Amino acid sequence: MDSQENQQNSAMHVMGGLKSTHDGMGQTSRKQFRRSHKKEISVDDFSREIRQGSRLHLAKAITLLESTVLEDKRTGQQLLQELLPYTGKSIRIGITGVPGAGKSTFIEAFGKYLCDQGFKVAVLAIDPSSSLSGGSILGDKTRMEELVRHENAFIRPSPSAGTLGGVHKKTRETMLLCEAAGYDVILIETVGVGQSETIVRGMVDFFMLLVLTGAGDELQGMKKGIMELADLLIVHKADGDNAKVAKKTVAEYEQILHFLQPASPGWTTKAMPVSSTEKMGIREVWEVIGSFKESLIDSGVYGERRQSQTKEWFHTMIMDRLMDEFYGTPDTKSQVKLLEKEILQGDLTVSNAVEHLFTNTKKT
Amino acid sequence: MDSQENQQNSAMHVMGGLKSTHDGMGQTSRKQFRRSHKKEISVDDFSREIRQGSRLHLAKAITLLESTVLEDKRTGQQLLQELLPYTGKSIRIGITGVPGAGKSTFIEAFGKYLCDQGFKVAVLAIDPSSSLSGGSILGDKTRMEELVRHENAFIRPSPSAGTLGGVHKKTRETMLLCEAAGYDVILIETVGVGQSETIVRGMVDFFMLLVLTGAGDELQGMKKGIMELADLLIVHKADGDNAKVAKKTVAEYEQILHFLQPASPGWTTKAMPVSSTEKMGIREVWEVIGSFKESLIDSGVYGERRQSQTKEWFHTMIMDRLMDEFYGTPDTKSQVKLLEKEILQGDLTVSNAVEHLFTNTKKT
Repeated sequence: MDSQENQQNSAMHVMGGLKSTHDGMGQTSRKQFRRSHKKEISVDDFSREIRQGSRLHLAKAITLLESTVLEDKRTGQQLLQELLPYTGKSIRIGITGVPGAGKSTFIEAFGKYLCDQGFKVAVLAIDPSSSLSGGSILGDKTRMEELVRHENAFIRPSPSAGTLGGVHKKTRETMLLCEAAGYDVILIETVGVGQSETIVRGMVDFFMLLVLTGAGDELQGMKKGIMELADLLIVHKADGDNAKVAKKTVAEYEQILHFLQPASPGWTTKAMPVSSTEKMGIREVWEVIGSFKESLIDSGVYGERRQSQTKEWFHTMIMDRLMDEFYGTPDTKSQVKLLEKEILQGDLTVSNAVEHLFTNTKKT
Repeated sequence: MDSQENQQNSAMHVMGGLKSTHDGMGQTSRKQFRRSHKKEISVDDFSREIRQGSRLHLAKAITLLESTVLEDKRTGQQLLQELLPYTGKSIRIGITGVPGAGKSTFIEAFGKYLCDQGFKVAVLAIDPSSSLSGGSILGDKTRMEELVRHENAFIRPSPSAGTLGGVHKKTRETMLLCEAAGYDVILIETVGVGQSETIVRGMVDFFMLLVLTGAGDELQGMKKGIMELADLLIVHKADGDNAKVAKKTVAEYEQILHFLQPASPGWTTKAMPVSSTEKMGIREVWEVIGSFKESLIDSGVYGERRQSQTKEWFHTMIMDRLMDEFYGTPDTKSQVKLLEKEILQGDLTVSNAVEHLFTNTKKT
């Protein structure tokens, strides 16, 4: 590969298969990528393209991290390693809400508002049932149509397959890549019905929950404890005739919030009405986030939380790896099933089963 | 050892060290215990004593399970294995509340009420800060004085040392022993400020939360999401002048509960006023538990929950064991610390750190 080739490389060229010729850690120079199955570009060049804002390179890098091909994954990790010094500068925002709360409408309005202010906005989704990845019942093709076309926006649906832990990992890494690519605001969308809110809460600075008017009924479909994860409660669709009811709902939620512990130390979780169609409350949401950030940076909570989030991510990944390795062998799997059956029949104590399992596993 | 010795064995004799001469699983006959460092009784005899209601044998068996001596632990497990067919017949009740809510006063009143009805009641505590294990600020020596002396009651404080997971395991096993010893009601006490409520919720059928009047202020010290674990909310100390306020607090809580998902499928979490000193509401609590049990047995939730609790316990113990083994080596520990530092400094990606860790661990 010569320098001319290096200069030539464009987004179009890297869409083909990629190949790394090195796999050591921290070796960042002269790693070669196959280009169009023939030509190659280096990790250095690739990472520079991302930092300079090439969306195609960013998208390709995310695909590498999501890949199940070992070599691609490695290349992705090398890239991420290279880009690590450029990460961490965005505000990371989690958004959840029950189906029907209008998450995509809100994200479109909120994202567009931010883009128009000159911010670069990345929208990621963490679970396959999110509106981004087409989980909508209506299959609404117009969702986020405007935001998608905005030059300051980057939208990436969730990887469609894999365990929650895996998706979690990929979303975190995608977030870091987006930060290195200069995105100022990362919006991570999740559906408020599963396990993913806790995971998203564990990777964002600010978490907001979209609800509808008529608190009681609407909350029925909401996961336990989800309100206690939120830094902001948005009573959405506060438009037209609904505006008045929304105000009442806000007051009701304020009352409930009074009884709950705040999600972030030193911050009082607020509730406010928003209309995405009438563009009402959008600016206020951004202002709330601004004062949240300021106050938590002052108290030191902001930085501490990021550090402990990263630490926890590390230890969760260690645990996942241990579990994968343990349950990964067909022999262990069938043994566990067998022991589980004996336990449930009342034939075996749990302690004895574990003892048995580990004694046998050690021997093989 | 001869049969005469077997017949002789009494509670006093087994308080010394114990020794098992077998360690295989499921071998229950002819296992020998050293008695007073000389004489021995068999697991069979020991388990029969427990089933016949010997409190001293029960206490000793719990001590064996809690022991850090491998041989004692093994003997304890053999006993538990032997007693397994006799477990599961009690109603398992978790009790939590903020400090000052009057948990021990309530447990004394509630426990005594049950004992007087002819039920055998075991009271266990899951964490060292509980009132049972003397975590009281006042060091109140009169706590549960009456209940302690009741012939139908068995009270066992939490093991004072060990990890939460360890204490969890021991409390579960103690519960099973108590069931084999014929206890009809198991009350498991925990303090409403830590991680232990979730763990207790994971081992009981019914969970109740003690609160005080003046919901808002009082809840401040309460853990997030704890209300959503409860099947019953008791507004305690509803006596004298407080009775009226308690009624208002009950109404306030009912309103909050309306917005939360019930802790048990098909059951609506209730709030009610109770005075332990005036013995008001005690019978009603027991009636609520009765209708809870009936309704959940009818719907099948009762049995399903027990099964999934046991399964989860098994898998949690597997995970704990894996973690212990992994973090147990000093080499891994220091490596993790080192990598953690590099990650937090932004020098290393989490994925690369994990990769590095497992590659190195495998080699050693």
